[in-house]
Amino acid sequence: MLDQVVCLAAVTIMGVLEQAYFSLQVIYARRKFSVSPPCTSGPSQFDRVFRAQVNCSEYFPIFIATLWTSGVFFNQGVSSVCGVLYLYARLRYFKGYSQSPQQRLTPLYFSARILWLLIALSCVGIFLCFWRVYVDVNLLQLLST
Amino acid sequence: MLDQVVCLAAVTIMGVLEQAYFSLQVIYARRKFSVSPPCTSGPSQFDRVFRAQVNCSEYFPIFIATLWTSGVFFNQGVSSVCGVLYLYARLRYFKGYSQSPQQRLTPLYFSARILWLLIALSCVGIFLCFWRVYVDVNLLQLLST
Amino acid sequence: MLDQVVCLAAVTIMGVLEQAYFSLQVIYARRKFSVSPPCTSGPSQFDRVFRAQVNCSEYFPIFIATLWTSGVFFNQGVSSVCGVLYLYARLRYFKGYSQSPQQRLTPLYFSARILWLLIALSCVGIFLCFWRVYVDVNLLQLLST
Repeated sequence: MLDQVVCLAAVTIMGVLEQAYFSLQVIYARRKFSVSPPCTSGPSQFDRVFRAQVNCSEYFPIFIATLWTSGVFFNQGVSSVCGVLYLYARLRYFKGYSQSPQQRLTPLYFSARILWLLIALSCVGIFLCFWRVYVDVNLLQLLST
Repeated sequence: MLDQVVCLAAVTIMGVLEQAYFSLQVIYARRKFSVSPPCTSGPSQFDRVFRAQVNCSEYFPIFIATLWTSGVFFNQGVSSVCGVLYLYARLRYFKGYSQSPQQRLTPLYFSARILWLLIALSCVGIFLCFWRVYVDVNLLQLLST
Repeated sequence: MLDQVVCLAAVTIMGVLEQAYFSLQVIYARRKFSVSPPCTSGPSQFDRVFRAQVNCSEYFPIFIATLWTSGVFFNQGVSSVCGVLYLYARLRYFKGYSQSPQQRLTPLYFSARILWLLIALSCVGIFLCFWRVYVDVNLLQLLST
């Protein structure tokens, strides 16, 4: 049974490692610009790195929830590929935002599109599961015959 | 087996969509009050919308964790109904907070009560499971005989 | 099957209760130092309590994700023990940070080390599962013979 979620687990750990990387960048930025905790604002270059990390942290649980829902109810392979693309978009977002607010936009829109795709796949998977469970009709099988 | 969690998955995606809605409201508020990233404070009307979204984001993983634990270990139906009530309370919290800090309180207390209920149901479910697994006693069956 | 995750569920609910405790501390600090929402800064004693709670919230989903991945793919018992240690470290972190930024460091480093351990265990578990599923080789059995 674990074989049906092992790719999702691998993408999850990749996501955790990415978050760890972002956290380390904030620590380096704190040292570089002398912004000591509990303070959270400083020169705009620090603010951008800090906000990039906060934004990625905020979306992390949403990403994990949609990754697993679409992976379990729709398809593990498709969801895992989307997951890797999302993490790549977030990396580019973080690096872009560190440069300027403008440069965060392209990867941000791309990551949002992937999240919407994961949400759509989840909805399809849940919808098909509801029909199987509560109406006892396998819609996919019905369509293919 | 998916039939035992499909309602939890549906509530999870509803929660994700609600978070997406809150995020969009912050984007609109940023435009309306000209608060450009990485800045996070402005007129108090913007601050309220921003803080409402941050607070909902903060509680999202806690909500998902208790929703699934109580749904898997106690009862899917009861937990899903609690989940929908929680999401409705959060929507009213967000709209209330956008008006004034005072108006956020009633739905906030209501959402907190639902979270405590989900925590209590989780504890009951985990407790019964521990007895079944480690003491080999089905307490529910014992009580009903 | 629930017996394979019941300890992880118990640690998860302990984590949720800890987050609830931290949230209550922020509410008490808001009253004590008269910092009304949506405001999030005040005297440095308030800022420290507030930031301690935000930091713990930020790491909560990462902790839950690694706890469950290592618990399901590596070993439930080992992961649960790590989980309890992590939560204890976070409690000491919160109390330390409430005193001074300096006193947060020792428990923070300890909690980070446990997170890295959970990530490492997850990687080992996922790696072994990949070999079983896609190469059809049980590495553990191979090593023991």
